[in-house]
Amino acid sequence: MKNFHKVKKIVIASDSFKGSVSSIEVAQIAETAVHNIFPECEVLKIPVADGGEGTVDVLVSVMNGNIISCRVKGPLMEPVLARYGIIEDEKTAVIEMASASGLTLVPVEKQNPMLTSTYGTGELIKDALLRGCTNFLVGIGGSATNDAGTGMLQALGFRFLDNKGKELGGGGKILTRICSIDDSKVVPEVKQAKFTVACDVNNPFSGIDGAAYVYARQKGADEQMIHDLDIGLKNFAEVIKNQKNKDIDSVPGAGAAGGIGGGFLAFLNANLKPGIEMVLDCIGFDSLIFGADLIITGEGKLDKQTGMGKVPAGVLIAAKKKEIPVIAIGGCIEEIEDLNNAGFLAVLSLLPYPVTLRQAMNKEFTLENIKRTLEQQFRVIQQFQIK
Amino acid sequence: MKNFHKVKKIVIASDSFKGSVSSIEVAQIAETAVHNIFPECEVLKIPVADGGEGTVDVLVSVMNGNIISCRVKGPLMEPVLARYGIIEDEKTAVIEMASASGLTLVPVEKQNPMLTSTYGTGELIKDALLRGCTNFLVGIGGSATNDAGTGMLQALGFRFLDNKGKELGGGGKILTRICSIDDSKVVPEVKQAKFTVACDVNNPFSGIDGAAYVYARQKGADEQMIHDLDIGLKNFAEVIKNQKNKDIDSVPGAGAAGGIGGGFLAFLNANLKPGIEMVLDCIGFDSLIFGADLIITGEGKLDKQTGMGKVPAGVLIAAKKKEIPVIAIGGCIEEIEDLNNAGFLAVLSLLPYPVTLRQAMNKEFTLENIKRTLEQQFRVIQQFQIK
Repeated sequence: MKNFHKVKKIVIASDSFKGSVSSIEVAQIAETAVHNIFPECEVLKIPVADGGEGTVDVLVSVMNGNIISCRVKGPLMEPVLARYGIIEDEKTAVIEMASASGLTLVPVEKQNPMLTSTYGTGELIKDALLRGCTNFLVGIGGSATNDAGTGMLQALGFRFLDNKGKELGGGGKILTRICSIDDSKVVPEVKQAKFTVACDVNNPFSGIDGAAYVYARQKGADEQMIHDLDIGLKNFAEVIKNQKNKDIDSVPGAGAAGGIGGGFLAFLNANLKPGIEMVLDCIGFDSLIFGADLIITGEGKLDKQTGMGKVPAGVLIAAKKKEIPVIAIGGCIEEIEDLNNAGFLAVLSLLPYPVTLRQAMNKEFTLENIKRTLEQQFRVIQQFQIK
Repeated sequence: MKNFHKVKKIVIASDSFKGSVSSIEVAQIAETAVHNIFPECEVLKIPVADGGEGTVDVLVSVMNGNIISCRVKGPLMEPVLARYGIIEDEKTAVIEMASASGLTLVPVEKQNPMLTSTYGTGELIKDALLRGCTNFLVGIGGSATNDAGTGMLQALGFRFLDNKGKELGGGGKILTRICSIDDSKVVPEVKQAKFTVACDVNNPFSGIDGAAYVYARQKGADEQMIHDLDIGLKNFAEVIKNQKNKDIDSVPGAGAAGGIGGGFLAFLNANLKPGIEMVLDCIGFDSLIFGADLIITGEGKLDKQTGMGKVPAGVLIAAKKKEIPVIAIGGCIEEIEDLNNAGFLAVLSLLPYPVTLRQAMNKEFTLENIKRTLEQQFRVIQQFQIK
């Protein structure tokens, strides 16, 4: 690591503390803490998300974009008011699949991946295409579906046909019956568009580690459905292979979010990448942190898992390339030695005294704790840095 | 503050975390944390106490003394096995009044300051006198008594006489009846002895802020007893004034521990001083911290009260004179801004995640948390100090 003589620039790049404070709020209170101790210090607030919940809000905030509200079809084709973001000269759309096709949109007793469709996600994409967007960043966490993205593709004009050439309806149940694909009616703007999908899992499309066997149960499937969905995914992969000469069945990430990873790969030439990487790339994080003496990151819970695809880990990777020390804060911290070994300079907890989890997650309490913890830290740095 | 270029000497001077870890254990785990990050750093472990519970153990440990067990009379004149310490060339005795005359030695239903006596505390002093001790450090917290030290003085040979010249018995009840004092039978060694009493309260001997009105209730007195005890204290002060020409009634601290403060002042020429000051003086703290780059102190609970007579406050006062920064750790921290304003460089909490108070006080958990918190801190200091 480099020698730092005086702290002149601090970057705040934290995830939200889920259920407590947003990443934007973390950045704001951390800035206050910095300036209370280092009034002259440059502070760069970069709210960060990991491609999951909150990604649209974070990117719209950081990139000065706009939120678009859009009436689309929900997982069971019911009307849903979804939202996405448009940023960067109005060419880049940021979409969270959960907004249109999320599991939380479906009452528990109706959750059934044989029936649920990603159609609404396709409608969001189409809406953005028609507004002139050509670059798509898509978060796919929290989906209610196992339709391999067929619903999304149908909304964009793709038609899935059975063995009699008849167009199929929607839901995971159609996968076993797809015999061919008709792309003659696809929205033309799709061809000019570039898709990046935030994907933090390595599951293949089908099989024991595939979308159906690993994720369908939590979306409401029983044993028989899981079995049928898996056969459907295998069939769909075969049709894709025959007709488009692309073998997606064993591609890592193809099984993400009910196989929509595979749908993106096969039909939209998408680039799958870790969510945090997608977000940091979009923000231009590598350039922003240039010259920083310290980066503060954080998340509600920090542990060994933090090393895998979470915001603090992504921030750390970028920081290490530039030899900038990273301090991580968390409401709940564990396995600190692993985190230190991974490269975090320090991992700091926030709680001032024994509290319940519920108290610990109170927003005002958390903000106050972040402020205090960072102020104490900056006071120590100020004392020991050369003056 | 000075500029520090490299951390070469760290002093660990913490109180115990009451009910969880001793100050000696805090010092040991903190030393491990220092050496894990700064293998070459000199570490000076100085367990500290505030003149209350644990003072004997701490001073015996730091000053390489011995514990003396001694069978004496308890608060109700029942046999009690008490203990005290002898340190420093076997000339200094360290006595905790609570060991012989403590409230916890008396079952709740028998707690009655009209009856309880400090006799046993006097026996401990006499035992040490007869072993050749000439210097006495006395902690007076936790007493069961309101006898103004008459019991202690009786054990040393003082006799308290009624209006007929008849020797009185013991307990707070005799105070109203004392007419004169006979010191002809006092153990002669008393005259050569020097007494320092750890006193952190400013209560006068009698009156509304005096020993009886402020403290007797928690020792089992009812309204009538409090009234009578106060009249007794006033009478005793008058007798002392007449016979010894000393007016102790309004001296701050004379009302400490059921008026034993006044007894010490009037009969043993004691010096009352804050407990932490007594302990730090005994240890030679001012000299020990010479050349330290950082002092770590702590206590189970840190808040505004910490500024008043507690270990971290005493450590801070000594450190400030030498411009050495002090970091305080606590299981429960509050009102940090006040503590920073008082001069603590940083105040750090220990909890890694939400827990109950009971869990928070678990010994292994606390030690692990101290170690982790300090290690993270030292990592930051290491990063930002010039190399």
